[in-house]
Parts: sequence; structure tokens; C-alpha cells
Amino acid sequence: MFLGKVIGTVWATRKDEELVGMKFQLVKHIGLDYKLKDTFVVAVDTVQAGVGDVVLVCSGSSSRQTTLTKNKPVDAVIMAVVDKLDITESS
Amino acid sequence: MFLGKVIGTVWATRKDEELVGMKFQLVKHIGLDYKLKDTFVVAVDTVQAGVGDVVLVCSGSSSRQTTLTKNKPVDAVIMAVVDKLDITESS
Amino acid sequence: MFLGKVIGTVWATRKDEELVGMKFQLVKHIGLDYKLKDTFVVAVDTVQAGVGDVVLVCSGSSSRQTTLTKNKPVDAVIMAVVDKLDITESS
Amino acid sequence: MFLGKVIGTVWATRKDEELVGMKFQLVKHIGLDYKLKDTFVVAVDTVQAGVGDVVLVCSGSSSRQTTLTKNKPVDAVIMAVVDKLDITESS
Amino acid sequence: MFLGKVIGTVWATRKDEELVGMKFQLVKHIGLDYKLKDTFVVAVDTVQAGVGDVVLVCSGSSSRQTTLTKNKPVDAVIMAVVDKLDITESS
Repeated sequence: MFLGKVIGTVWATRKDEELVGMKFQLVKHIGLDYKLKDTFVVAVDTVQAGVGDVVLVCSGSSSRQTTLTKNKPVDAVIMAVVDKLDITESS
Repeated sequence: MFLGKVIGTVWATRKDEELVGMKFQLVKHIGLDYKLKDTFVVAVDTVQAGVGDVVLVCSGSSSRQTTLTKNKPVDAVIMAVVDKLDITESS
Repeated sequence: MFLGKVIGTVWATRKDEELVGMKFQLVKHIGLDYKLKDTFVVAVDTVQAGVGDVVLVCSGSSSRQTTLTKNKPVDAVIMAVVDKLDITESS
Repeated sequence: MFLGKVIGTVWATRKDEELVGMKFQLVKHIGLDYKLKDTFVVAVDTVQAGVGDVVLVCSGSSSRQTTLTKNKPVDAVIMAVVDKLDITESS
Repeated sequence: MFLGKVIGTVWATRKDEELVGMKFQLVKHIGLDYKLKDTFVVAVDTVQAGVGDVVLVCSGSSSRQTTLTKNKPVDAVIMAVVDKLDITESS
């Protein structure tokens, strides 16, 4: 999984019918210092993550292992909202 | 999923028989400012996306989760045409 | 899928028994201008692509969705020979 | 698989219900000299790896092939603690 | 698949029980000139590849398609030892 921060939402009316009702969030990668990186993905929200939330994103086939995304054409899901990072060693 | 823009089409007569009838679109990656990046993929269109459309592309095994691509040797599909991006926070 | 060009063949006598009879082609990534990039993969040929052919390569689990590669330990297949690219917009 | 070192833990109360009870470890990539790289992933621990342990991380769908992670939305697991590396040739 | 060269072995006593008896080899990526690159992966050996051997490595879910690795948490296998590369065109 990777750490990211929700920075917005993608609106798409014309889409595969399997995707109706899903929320597509824009998630920027972040570092261990919570700083935003330049890269981002679009991930389906499964935990009601809102803009500004630090989240865990699961990618690939594993992103279809939630009730909402089962058998759907999605390759990234937000599956947790991060409370905090405990970093004991960083160099 | 990643954000991209359709910039053209790939023509291929000689191909795996499972692929007959599919449209292979050239999709360049774009940033949050809609600017084209240098990188691109070839994705199967499932939503009648045309050249110039901003789209969502799903990769990997999940790209086989549409009616059109089920059990086919394809690893990227256009599964939505993007209307707009709502970006609340970008730095 | 990505665009590539076949530049050679890999010979391997000692291999998993599931792979006997497959042709392993060296495929370099190319750009929209057909120029070779430095990176390459080894892909199983399913469409009799020869050296110099511009091809479409499918990666990951989807590369097992051809008759030849079903249930085999291969992660990249050439599934089409490209006739031409129609590029309408490139910047 | 890749080599990494556990540097901390991610705490997340709000998460997919399938993930309750799992430990999410922060794992930095390391080189053959055990030096930490800048990149990291979040991986589910299956071998009671602690902070400072050098570990093997398995990614993608294969990370669901442990008893703990079967059918779960996780894309990286720590599946071994490394005792040592035997490097015979390095240039 | 990618081309690599075996440069050593990873020893790990504490590991997922599914992995007992497997040999984890350190494989560096190589170029078409057989030169070692800086990057490496840890791959399960299925063809008795030894240190110094040039090998083909299969990644992702496809790496579970050998008798040895079926249903195991591994994401890379050595599935062939390379005899030679026939390169007809390289620029």
C-alpha cells in the first residue's frame, strides 16, 4: 500500500455501468513527513475519506477485494484513513 | 486509475483473435492541469472515448472486468470519460 | 499495452517445462515516433512477430489470456503487430 | 520480492472491516549494502517483524497468498525476516 | 519477463510456512550487453540457476504458475536460464 492525501474528486458521467455510485478521489502520494509529492492516482473511496485526509491506498487486483469494488474495473482503492505514523528509525 | 487524454488510435490487423473488434486508443498521461506528459499507454476503449477526451484508465487484471474485455489479453481500458476535476488542495 | 519493436530472440534450453515451444522475443519500448528507447522486456510471441516488427505488448496476468500462454509462468506477450498509428494530437 | 527494513507502524482506526487486526508496517527499500533508500511501502506483517528487521516483501496479488491476507484488500506483505545475504558477485 | 544475473542468495529462517524449501536468489537486472544494473529483485529459483547464470525472471501473479510456486506468496521466479541472445537490430 502507499501513503497518500486526498486532494479532490473526479467527476465522470460517461463510464462503465459497473462504476455507477462510486466516488473517485484524487490522491497525491506523500512522504513520511506528510509532504505532498507531484504524483497522484485516482482511487475509489471505500471508507468515506474526505479532502485533506491521509489515507492508505491499495493497488492492483487487491483493490477489488472490498465489498464495493468486487469484480469492478478499478485498480486502486482507499481502504484506510491514517491516524498517525510511528516512525522509530528513519536513516 | 490514472488520468489521460486520447491522442490517437493504433491499427493492427494481425492480432490475437480475442481482440477482434476492439478499439485500441493511444492515451497520454496528463497532470492535474490537464497538460500532456511524455508517457503514453495503449488502452482498449469501452466508453466510446474520442480523440481529445480526458479519460480514466484502469490497468492490470482489473482492466478485464468489463463486458468487452472479460478474459481478453488486454492490460489497460478506458473506463470513464472525465467531466471535470474538483481540486481543493494542491500543495 | 505498450508499443515496442522486436529486436531479437532469447534462447534458453533449461526452463520451466510449461514453456517448451514458446518463442521469447526481445522487445524494446518505442515512442510515438517509432524511435527505440533504452528499455526492453522479454515477451512471448503469439502472432508470429518477427525482428523489426512494431508490436503491442500486454503485461501482467492478462498476458496469460491467450491460448498459448494460459496458466503459464509468463508475464508479457506480443498480442498484435501494429500496422500504423493515427495520431491526431500530440502536444 | 524486494528487500526492505521496517522503520515504523501505521495506525488507522477507520478502515475496511476486512483489515481489522492486521499490523501495517512502514518498510523502506534497502540496497545490497543494507542502506536505506528514500522510497517506502506499507506492508502487512505476517511474520512478527519488528522495527529494524530486514525483511522480504511480496507485492501484488501474491501478497494475498498467506493465511492472514487471503481475500483481503492488501497489496504488500512481509513474508520473511532476512538472516543474511550471500553475495558472490556484485559488479 | 526481464533479463537478470544471479549474484547471490537470501537466507531467511523466519518466514511464511508456505515458503519452506524455496531458494531465494538475488537477481540483478542486466542490459542487452549483459552488464549489471544497480537494481535487483529477490526471485524464487525453479530451474536450479546458480550464481553467475543469466536468467529470465517472471514477475507478478504469473510467478505463481509453476509447480513449486503455486498458491505461494511469491511475486518473482526464475523460470529459465538464458543460453544466448540473438540481437539483430539494436538502434
